[in-house]
Amino acid sequence: MKKKKENSNASGLKIIPLGGLEQIGMNITAFQYEDSIIVVDCGLSFPADDMLGIDLVIPDVTYLKDNIDKVKGFVITHGHEDHIGALPYVLRDINVPIYATRLTMGIIENKLTEHNLMKKTKRKVVKFGQSINLGDFRVEFIKTNHSIVDAAALAIYSPAGIVVHTGDFKVDYTPVYGDAIDLQRFAEIGKKGVLALMCDSTNAERPGFTPSEKTVGKTFDTLFEEHKNTRIFVATFASNVDRVQQIINTAYKFGRKVAVEGRSMVNILDTAIKLECINIPENTLVDLDQMKNYPDEQQVIITTGSQGESMAALSRMANNMHRKITIGAGDTVIFSSNPIPGNEKSVTKIINELLRKGADVIFQDAHVSGHACQEEIKLIYTLIHPKYAVPVHGEYKHLKAQAKIAESLGISKDNIFILSSGDVLEVSEEQAKVAGRVPVGAILVDGLGVGDVGNVVLRDRQHLAEDGIMIVVMSLDRASGELVAGPDIVSRGFVYVKESDELIEEARRTVDDALQACLDKGITDWGKLKTTTKDVLGDYVWKKTKRRPMILPIIMEV
Amino acid sequence: MKKKKENSNASGLKIIPLGGLEQIGMNITAFQYEDSIIVVDCGLSFPADDMLGIDLVIPDVTYLKDNIDKVKGFVITHGHEDHIGALPYVLRDINVPIYATRLTMGIIENKLTEHNLMKKTKRKVVKFGQSINLGDFRVEFIKTNHSIVDAAALAIYSPAGIVVHTGDFKVDYTPVYGDAIDLQRFAEIGKKGVLALMCDSTNAERPGFTPSEKTVGKTFDTLFEEHKNTRIFVATFASNVDRVQQIINTAYKFGRKVAVEGRSMVNILDTAIKLECINIPENTLVDLDQMKNYPDEQQVIITTGSQGESMAALSRMANNMHRKITIGAGDTVIFSSNPIPGNEKSVTKIINELLRKGADVIFQDAHVSGHACQEEIKLIYTLIHPKYAVPVHGEYKHLKAQAKIAESLGISKDNIFILSSGDVLEVSEEQAKVAGRVPVGAILVDGLGVGDVGNVVLRDRQHLAEDGIMIVVMSLDRASGELVAGPDIVSRGFVYVKESDELIEEARRTVDDALQACLDKGITDWGKLKTTTKDVLGDYVWKKTKRRPMILPIIMEV
Repeated sequence: MKKKKENSNASGLKIIPLGGLEQIGMNITAFQYEDSIIVVDCGLSFPADDMLGIDLVIPDVTYLKDNIDKVKGFVITHGHEDHIGALPYVLRDINVPIYATRLTMGIIENKLTEHNLMKKTKRKVVKFGQSINLGDFRVEFIKTNHSIVDAAALAIYSPAGIVVHTGDFKVDYTPVYGDAIDLQRFAEIGKKGVLALMCDSTNAERPGFTPSEKTVGKTFDTLFEEHKNTRIFVATFASNVDRVQQIINTAYKFGRKVAVEGRSMVNILDTAIKLECINIPENTLVDLDQMKNYPDEQQVIITTGSQGESMAALSRMANNMHRKITIGAGDTVIFSSNPIPGNEKSVTKIINELLRKGADVIFQDAHVSGHACQEEIKLIYTLIHPKYAVPVHGEYKHLKAQAKIAESLGISKDNIFILSSGDVLEVSEEQAKVAGRVPVGAILVDGLGVGDVGNVVLRDRQHLAEDGIMIVVMSLDRASGELVAGPDIVSRGFVYVKESDELIEEARRTVDDALQACLDKGITDWGKLKTTTKDVLGDYVWKKTKRRPMILPIIMEV
Repeated sequence: MKKKKENSNASGLKIIPLGGLEQIGMNITAFQYEDSIIVVDCGLSFPADDMLGIDLVIPDVTYLKDNIDKVKGFVITHGHEDHIGALPYVLRDINVPIYATRLTMGIIENKLTEHNLMKKTKRKVVKFGQSINLGDFRVEFIKTNHSIVDAAALAIYSPAGIVVHTGDFKVDYTPVYGDAIDLQRFAEIGKKGVLALMCDSTNAERPGFTPSEKTVGKTFDTLFEEHKNTRIFVATFASNVDRVQQIINTAYKFGRKVAVEGRSMVNILDTAIKLECINIPENTLVDLDQMKNYPDEQQVIITTGSQGESMAALSRMANNMHRKITIGAGDTVIFSSNPIPGNEKSVTKIINELLRKGADVIFQDAHVSGHACQEEIKLIYTLIHPKYAVPVHGEYKHLKAQAKIAESLGISKDNIFILSSGDVLEVSEEQAKVAGRVPVGAILVDGLGVGDVGNVVLRDRQHLAEDGIMIVVMSLDRASGELVAGPDIVSRGFVYVKESDELIEEARRTVDDALQACLDKGITDWGKLKTTTKDVLGDYVWKKTKRRPMILPIIMEV
C-alpha cells in the first residue's frame, strides 16, 4: 500500500487507447506504468463506405514502436477480429509475447500460421483465474460470457491500483459451454478497491438483460419441429461456437446430419473440435459431399454469409453459384444472426433472393446478442464499484449511454471519462485526467499493401468512382515545341464512348483549339499546357453534362 | 354488365407494372384495356450502392412510347419522389395529362417549373370522391392517410371490372389534417364487386396497427416540456407536412418561434401554405436570419437531414459548415424519423457527431410510420373483398408477407399474384394470368445525362473505385514502327506515386522490356502491343501488390 501511494504521486498509471473509440472495431489499448507497457487486444476494423477498395484497417502503433523496449506483451480478451485481427500486421514491428485463453489462442494461431509467423511469435495460453506478470503489471484472466467461447475480462494490477477491463461480455447464467461469468471474482476484486472500470458499451442503449444463449437452442428445437420435412440451412457467425453447438444438438435430436460450409466456419470449427470446446455426437458431422446420400429431412447445413456477404457460401448457394449445393423451393433457411449496422441492405437482398427461389426464410428470433444490456452493465458496476469509469467498445453514442448509467449509479461526472483514441489518461487514487496525446491513426490495408493507400489515393478513387476519368494525351516535338500528335481523349467510367462520339470529339476540338492558342502565343511550359487542358475540358464537360470526371493530361516529348 | 361480360371474354384488362417490384421506389404501373392505357404513378428510385456516381434512377417506358397513341394520362396517388420523381424525365417522351389531388399537384408543379415543363404539360387537380374518364377507364380518387397530405387510393373502373389501388397508405382515425381514410367508400366499392386489389405491402411484416400521426404530437409536447430551456432542432422528412404542423403546434403552445431550414423543406412548406394544407398561427414562423433576436428557449428549427445526408442542413449545422447556425452544447436535437434501410450508418454518424458536440439527441419515439401494418391490410382486404390480390410497394419479402395475409383471409393461392416489373397480368372475372412480358428496365440519370451511363461505364467505375488506374503511354514512329517515347506509367487511385517510385519504375522497365521484345520480333500491331502491356503489367502488379488496377495502354503515332 505504501509503495502504491508513493508511485501514484510520482507518475500514476497511464491508460492509452490506440484505437477503438472513433470506430467500431480496431480495439487496442496500452497500459503504461513507468517502464512497463502492456497492450490489451489488437483488433482490426472493416473499411468505412468511403474507403474504396480497402480490405481492412489496422491501428497505427507508432507509440508502441517508439517505446518498444517497454512493451511486455499483448493480453487478448477474446478471439473476434476486432480484438485480434491486426496482430499479424502489428507483430511485424512489435514482436512481443501474446497471452490469451485457449480458444482465443487457437484462433490467433490460425492467423499466425497463415502469415508464417508461428515460429517468430511467443505465445502463452492462460487459464481463467490465472495471473501473468508483465513488468510492473500483473494481469488476471476472469471468465466472462460472450458470443465466442473462452472470452475473458482482465483485472490489471498495477502499483497505482487495479483496473478491470471487461472485454466484450454478457452475463449468461446458463451458458451453453463452460461456466457462467465469474461474478464472485468480480465481487472479490471490487472489494479490494478498483481504480477504474473499462466496460463494454455496445448494448448500453438497450434496457434490461440480454437473454441466455440457451434460449436460442429452444428456438431451434421449435423451428426444426415446424420444418420436419425440409432441408434446413442455418446461417450464423463463424466464430459463434456455442451457436454451432446448439444447432448440432438440435439436429441430433431430430436425427439429422450436419455439414458445415464456408472457409472461416470450417476453420474455427476445426479449432474448436481440436481444443474440445465443442461436443459433437458421433456420426452427426458429415462432409458436404456426403450430404447427397441423405434425404432432405435428414440434412442440416450450417453456413457463413448471414450478413449477406456476396462471396460467402449462403449467397453462392442462393444464386446457383455454389459448386455443390443450390438452395431452392422447399428448403428452409434460418438466419441465426442480426444484421451488423451497415449490412441491413445486403441481408435484405439475400432474403429476397431466397424467398424468390421459393425457400422458406426465418430471419427473426433465432439470435441473441453477445453483449451486456443496461441491467448487466449496472450489475458489473455494482460488483466492481470503481472510482473511475472509462466506457469502451462502441460508438460515441454507446459510450455516452454507458456514462449515463455510471452517473445514475452514483459515479460523479468528473470521474467518468469518454476518451478518444490517442488520449493519455493518467489515473491514480488522488485524481484522473487526460494528460496528453500520443499519435494514433488508421492504417489501410489493400491487398499486400499496408499503409501505402493514403488520403490522396482514396480521394482519387472517390473521384474516379463518381464520374470516371478523361485522359488527354499529346506529343510535343522536343526541338520545335510543336504539337506533333494529339490531343486525343480516352475516357473510362465517364460515358460509354460509342454513345457519345460527338461529345468526345467536340471536347477534343475544344482542347485542341485552346492548346494551339497557347502554343501560338509561345507558351510551351508543360504545367501551363496541362492546366489549360484541365480548365478548358473541365468547363466544357460540366456545361454539357453537369459531371466532373477526373481530367488527366499527359504530355509526351518526342 | 352485359358489355363487361363480352369484353372480358374478348381481351380483359391488362395490369403492367413498369417498375417498383424489383426495387424500393420507381413505382409506375400501366393499366390497359384495348386501346386505352392509363399510368398510375411515375416514380424514381435512388441508386443502389454499386451504381457509382449515379444521381437517380428512372423507369424505362419503352412500352408506353410504343403505344403512345393509347396513353390517356398519368394518375398520381401522392407526392412522394418514388411516385412522382420520374415525371419530368418521362414527360419528355410521354406528354400526356397528369391527374392528381391538390398538394400532390402542387409538388409536381414545383418539379415541372424547375424543368421548364409547366407550359407543355396538361394538368388537372382532382378532388376526393371525384372521378375522371380516361378512354375506356374511369378513375375515382379515394381519401387515404399517409405520411404526406392528400394521398389517394384509386378505384379503376374498366369494362372488365374494378381494380382498387391503395397507393401508399395507413389507416389514421385521427389524422392531423383533413379526414380519416374513406373506409365507407372502400366498403361501398367492395360491395359492387372488385376484381383485383393492389395494396401497399411496405409494413406487411409488422403485426398490429400503425399508430396515428397524432401520437407524435403528444410526444413533441412531452419532449418540449422536458427541454424547456434549450434551443430545439427537429429533423424530419421535408414532405411530411402533418409532422411540421404538429411541431409548429407544440412550438406555439410553448411560446417558441419556428424557422425552417433545408431547400426541400422550404419548398414543400411554401406549397403547403399556398394550398392551405397547413395552419400556422400568426407570428410563429420566422426567417432563420431573425432567430438570433430570440433567446434559445424560444427557438425551434425544423430541418432536413434526418437520414444523415452529408449535404443536408442538419449535417452542415452539426459540422460547423452552415453559414448561419451551429449546433452545440445545450441544444436539443429530435430525430422525428426512422432511418430508411441503408441509411442506418449515416444516421448513426450524425448522432455521434451531435453528441460529441454536446447536444442532447433524441432519436426514438418521435416518429410513426406512414404505412399500414398487418391489421390495417386485413381491414382493407375485408372491405374490398377482391377476387384477385396483387401485392405492391415493397421488396419481395414484403410482397410475400402480404400474400400470406391475403391467403389467411381466404383468397386462394392461385388468385394471388406477386408480379415482376414487365409482367403483363391479364385479369377478367373468369381468370387471371401472367400472359406476357413488356420491356422494362432502370435508366440511370447522372447529371444531365439520362441513360448514357450503362453497364460498361458502371463496371469501369467499380473497377476504378476498387484499385485505381494505371495508364501506359508510348509514342510509335509512324514510319519505322519504333518506340520513340515511353512507355511511361501514370497512376491514379492505385498507390501514391511518391510512396512507390520504385514499384512504378520497375513496372515501367518490365513493360518496356516486353514491348521491345515484341518490336524486335517485328510485332507492331497496336492490338498486340496493348494486350502485351496489359498482361505483363497486370501480372507484375498482382504479384507485387495483390491488386488489379485498371490498365489502360495508350499508343500515339508521331
